[in-house]
Amino acid sequence: MKSINLGLIGLGTIGTGVLKVLRENSALIEKRLGVSLVIKGIADLDIETDRGIAIDKSILTTDAGKIINDDEINIVIELMGGYEPALSYILQSISNKKHIVTANKALLAKHGPEVFEAVNKHQVNIGFEASVGGGIPVIRSLTDNLAANKFESIYGIVNGTGNYILSKMTDEATNLQETLKEAQEKGYAEADPSFDIEGMDSAHKIAILASLAFGSHIPIESVFTEGITHISLEDINFAKEFGYRIKLLAIAKRSDDAIDIRVHPTMMSQDNPISNINGVLNAVKIKGNAVGETMLIGEGAGAFPTASAVLGDAMEIAGEIAYGRKSPLFKINSNSKLKPIDEIVSEYYLRFSVQDKPGILSKLSGILGNHSISIASVIQKGRNQSVSVPLVFMTHKARERDVQKAVEEINKLNVVTGKSILIRVENES
Amino acid sequence: MKSINLGLIGLGTIGTGVLKVLRENSALIEKRLGVSLVIKGIADLDIETDRGIAIDKSILTTDAGKIINDDEINIVIELMGGYEPALSYILQSISNKKHIVTANKALLAKHGPEVFEAVNKHQVNIGFEASVGGGIPVIRSLTDNLAANKFESIYGIVNGTGNYILSKMTDEATNLQETLKEAQEKGYAEADPSFDIEGMDSAHKIAILASLAFGSHIPIESVFTEGITHISLEDINFAKEFGYRIKLLAIAKRSDDAIDIRVHPTMMSQDNPISNINGVLNAVKIKGNAVGETMLIGEGAGAFPTASAVLGDAMEIAGEIAYGRKSPLFKINSNSKLKPIDEIVSEYYLRFSVQDKPGILSKLSGILGNHSISIASVIQKGRNQSVSVPLVFMTHKARERDVQKAVEEINKLNVVTGKSILIRVENES
Repeated sequence: MKSINLGLIGLGTIGTGVLKVLRENSALIEKRLGVSLVIKGIADLDIETDRGIAIDKSILTTDAGKIINDDEINIVIELMGGYEPALSYILQSISNKKHIVTANKALLAKHGPEVFEAVNKHQVNIGFEASVGGGIPVIRSLTDNLAANKFESIYGIVNGTGNYILSKMTDEATNLQETLKEAQEKGYAEADPSFDIEGMDSAHKIAILASLAFGSHIPIESVFTEGITHISLEDINFAKEFGYRIKLLAIAKRSDDAIDIRVHPTMMSQDNPISNINGVLNAVKIKGNAVGETMLIGEGAGAFPTASAVLGDAMEIAGEIAYGRKSPLFKINSNSKLKPIDEIVSEYYLRFSVQDKPGILSKLSGILGNHSISIASVIQKGRNQSVSVPLVFMTHKARERDVQKAVEEINKLNVVTGKSILIRVENES
Repeated sequence: MKSINLGLIGLGTIGTGVLKVLRENSALIEKRLGVSLVIKGIADLDIETDRGIAIDKSILTTDAGKIINDDEINIVIELMGGYEPALSYILQSISNKKHIVTANKALLAKHGPEVFEAVNKHQVNIGFEASVGGGIPVIRSLTDNLAANKFESIYGIVNGTGNYILSKMTDEATNLQETLKEAQEKGYAEADPSFDIEGMDSAHKIAILASLAFGSHIPIESVFTEGITHISLEDINFAKEFGYRIKLLAIAKRSDDAIDIRVHPTMMSQDNPISNINGVLNAVKIKGNAVGETMLIGEGAGAFPTASAVLGDAMEIAGEIAYGRKSPLFKINSNSKLKPIDEIVSEYYLRFSVQDKPGILSKLSGILGNHSISIASVIQKGRNQSVSVPLVFMTHKARERDVQKAVEEINKLNVVTGKSILIRVENES
């Protein structure tokens, strides 16, 4: 099988996540792509720390030049972050005709035009899905899937740390200081959280999204940016009285004469779906003149979601290198067994119409029990003027076959007066 | 500028939507793609009806063969629906080395393997983003963006008609028959709604998604399919008592030995985001071993959202034809004016800390009024043991500059005892 060589610069949390996902899913990735992705070199200043995954020592180096100048490396994955030396490494790699995958939003927001110009000049490709929204497919939705739209606005929650803090203050009535401290203990906030809670991280991300959607340079220093440090529990509670929640929103709207782009705490109606995106989740709403509104939600950070985006980009570029164009499709070449409905395990809502007589509940619950169906709750309501009453069970997990048999048996009872109703209940998803 | 020729088979609602969006956004599409998309031929049995858009009569034909066999057409867009003659047209086009874009979920769910085999054999590409979820980028999220994931499950609401009916029954306590009738009057349900409300449309769509995610053929006749025709208001109300809502869910989960794929009405907790996807909206939740959970929400049908997906696919393929590979990026080549924060128009939450004395509300609201800021609501709470009380205003739309000036003026009053708080309110989005 043809292989495409990857070079990794930066072996922190995200870099290690990329190695782990690539190792875990390598068979699947090869099968889908028809090409094998091989990590040929990894550069980091620290190559001694145990990352919790076995790495061949011979591919580790402290010298990024060994990646950038390796003729056999096709794609350089930059995960070190920051402006320099990341920018120099990327530009050198591009002039060496290497394709780039990066998660570096600060660099793209500030130096995007320079990087994209180099990419176009040297006819290489760049993937940066990981720079906004972790694994949420927001970048390529804008540039590819929704490319036929005139975009009207893009906005949402693009910083998980800020959202975690505001959600927790709202739900548990805690203050900013104690919530931040707890977020730091849980690893949801950095030791120096200012980049997140002052809004800069959101500003970088919305600048990238707006530049793609509106085809315009967005000088990052021109993006109005206000963080959440002045938000108090008092305002959160007043917001509730008005039917609102406070979210750290990144907003970009186009009007005829200007782009309105800003980051600030925003009150949104409790009924707005974005108000209900809580914890570290991110959500981006895109309005286009054809698609209408579409919203993408998911984990906006973390090693594995980010690795998902990094490797998705690497696969796309590897496919182009290998085939001269994108591999036409996923291979659909197996015939997996489908689970018969009889064998599924679910919770169930069962409604029986029964005569309003004593002993019926005991009778029906006995039949359910005989079929290994355990009951979570029951609603039984007597009606004075009716001979037929509903008897409703909510079950714990049971096998469909058993439930069908029990219902069949119950339906044969002469106390059953009407059609029985079975509705499956999903609690996990 | 290089142009790529498209041939359209089927000029119904979707086909007309494609023409309208292409005409409206053509300058933008050319700028992004660097290639012009030209409709060179349109085949439909009815070429007389006025579609509300001017069409050059010379490109209209009732003979699909004129599209399929036109050497100058690069991409055939099939929007006629149904199994035959759509399948024959598609297979003939493929053997004539034409690329395909289609929205035909029934055809793909039943004849997908045959179509994909032909595509691979003749080395053409096929786009079918429009077949599931309208403009929501769910297909290419699976095949491209999230391609590095082992998928664990995909499920959601993929039929807008069914969701509209269940949402309305839930929110307005109407019964199935009257709700269906109203949906038909509004154009949300077909004259013969059985395909939607019996669950077949959802079954086709989940079969396509599952076949991509799990790389397995899914015989459509093996998908357990139960519609919503037996759902009564009584069960919807019992569901509410348990804290649930009833949704028509399409579910595909992979376990080690089999794929669990099914369509049926399902009770889901009111707290589950999918329970809150109402009306004609669709939502698909994808779980992968790297990305975690990601959810895509949007309009799942309709002429323009579907046209967005059709044209996104056509642009992707046109880029490959024109460049041998995908165009590297959106062009970011303008420097749009950014709107200064002073000039934005928003609603505002303003909280002032003031002395608890008579006349203060009148004083502050007077200042707001002088700056053209109209007040929507006020919360004023006296506290007996405090000299300082919060005075909270929620404003109607106002210009930021005016609000800042008013706050500045208010801050100078000696009745103001603490820091004033301004939070912007989004009600439109």
